[in-house]
Amino acid sequence: MAANRRLTREAVREAIAAGARLVVLPELSTSGYVFESPAEARECAEPASGPSLQGWAEEAARGDAVVVGGFCELGEDGLLYNSAAVVDATGVLGVYRKIHLWDREKLFFEPGHACAPVLATRAGRIGVAVCYDLFFPELIRGLALGGAELIALPANLPRFPQPEERPIEITLAMATAHLNHLFFALCDRCGPERGVEWVGATVICDEHGWPLAGPPAGNGPALVVADCDLSRARDKALSERNDVLGDRRPELYVPDEPTHVA
Amino acid sequence: MAANRRLTREAVREAIAAGARLVVLPELSTSGYVFESPAEARECAEPASGPSLQGWAEEAARGDAVVVGGFCELGEDGLLYNSAAVVDATGVLGVYRKIHLWDREKLFFEPGHACAPVLATRAGRIGVAVCYDLFFPELIRGLALGGAELIALPANLPRFPQPEERPIEITLAMATAHLNHLFFALCDRCGPERGVEWVGATVICDEHGWPLAGPPAGNGPALVVADCDLSRARDKALSERNDVLGDRRPELYVPDEPTHVA
Repeated sequence: MAANRRLTREAVREAIAAGARLVVLPELSTSGYVFESPAEARECAEPASGPSLQGWAEEAARGDAVVVGGFCELGEDGLLYNSAAVVDATGVLGVYRKIHLWDREKLFFEPGHACAPVLATRAGRIGVAVCYDLFFPELIRGLALGGAELIALPANLPRFPQPEERPIEITLAMATAHLNHLFFALCDRCGPERGVEWVGATVICDEHGWPLAGPPAGNGPALVVADCDLSRARDKALSERNDVLGDRRPELYVPDEPTHVA
Repeated sequence: MAANRRLTREAVREAIAAGARLVVLPELSTSGYVFESPAEARECAEPASGPSLQGWAEEAARGDAVVVGGFCELGEDGLLYNSAAVVDATGVLGVYRKIHLWDREKLFFEPGHACAPVLATRAGRIGVAVCYDLFFPELIRGLALGGAELIALPANLPRFPQPEERPIEITLAMATAHLNHLFFALCDRCGPERGVEWVGATVICDEHGWPLAGPPAGNGPALVVADCDLSRARDKALSERNDVLGDRRPELYVPDEPTHVA
């Protein structure tokens, strides 16, 4: 826990030294992911007012930066949440509690009860979601409708068998960025943890979905940096007559029951 | 018009001869796409009871097959629609009128006023959408919720500048299939038409999003065929504790207004 806290703080410092205005850390970056028991998860939890986020805030102050990172949150209700915090030099701007829990997370965490947020920060309007949330395009669309220019997604993506090509999670990030015409910063874990292999699918996509940086070669710790002009995500025009969000027809998105049976 | 009608009928015949149980044709396959005027579009229109769909039904009868194809529909209201028909040996099972019109289509067509459908056919439960509809993940999600095992997407995808890699539309199809755990059959146009270059991004993806066949080499007419066990799209379990559709939390998909301004 103390070691992870130090590592995440050092990673934030390194990124800001490299010029980053927005830094994204992985999911559960202060605690690790593969808990053996609820008790072990609880030992790794801390409140949003705890030392990990305080450390990120102190680092953010060095570069007028914003940090989005996953942590194991001890709620004021005594429950544990798989959360992402948004922090700047002034402290904690917001905490999002992951609403879609993956597999054994359900043994340790309470799912969040509030929408994923869009925060207007000094680094732009940042939508925040965590890992498996990416698999719910309706959540991401909500962030786009909420004005997100960039989505920051702390993640711990376990490796599943797939063809020898770009990890499917990067394909999802690209499509998500393209479909919502916004930037996407996915920060994944790397290496192994208690028998789980992480994909290391860290990537930054532009508003057309194209990777600007990442994934890093190898599967070790890496800093992935890209210049993103977030203002480009504000203009949703696709043609003289089309607009990514304006063309939506939400009244028609609930299908009828099947109308023909052969 | 007569030539296109013959070409689409021949394409259906060829596909069924190759063993296809489900045949997907491009958008506006009987008329072409690049109209100069509403009058020209009207000259290329026909009702769903017209000879083009009748021809497809006759071909479908040869193989107990189902055909999904785009056509320029003359509605009973006298308006033109950019429609996709689902046809089998018994005739027309359903007609979907595209609800998201792209660019100059708005000059020629009335947008549809009904949801994209899921039809239970002898080739499986088929969700139908057309081209630009793919850019609305909430529409596709509706088809998944409606029980679609495969989405058939007639398309005419104009080529835009992009990096030298897989066309973005194929990335979108892969992500869409993966996120909804269903098969995806995208049939695109090829070659040039009145100064527009079509991408030729025809692809069939499995329920994990991986291309089973396509896109064809070159940019000429091609038949893309794959074996798809659609029953695999019915089981939406992702892990012991996760389900693609069951994990949704629709009450949380409308974001709050931005909560912090730095």
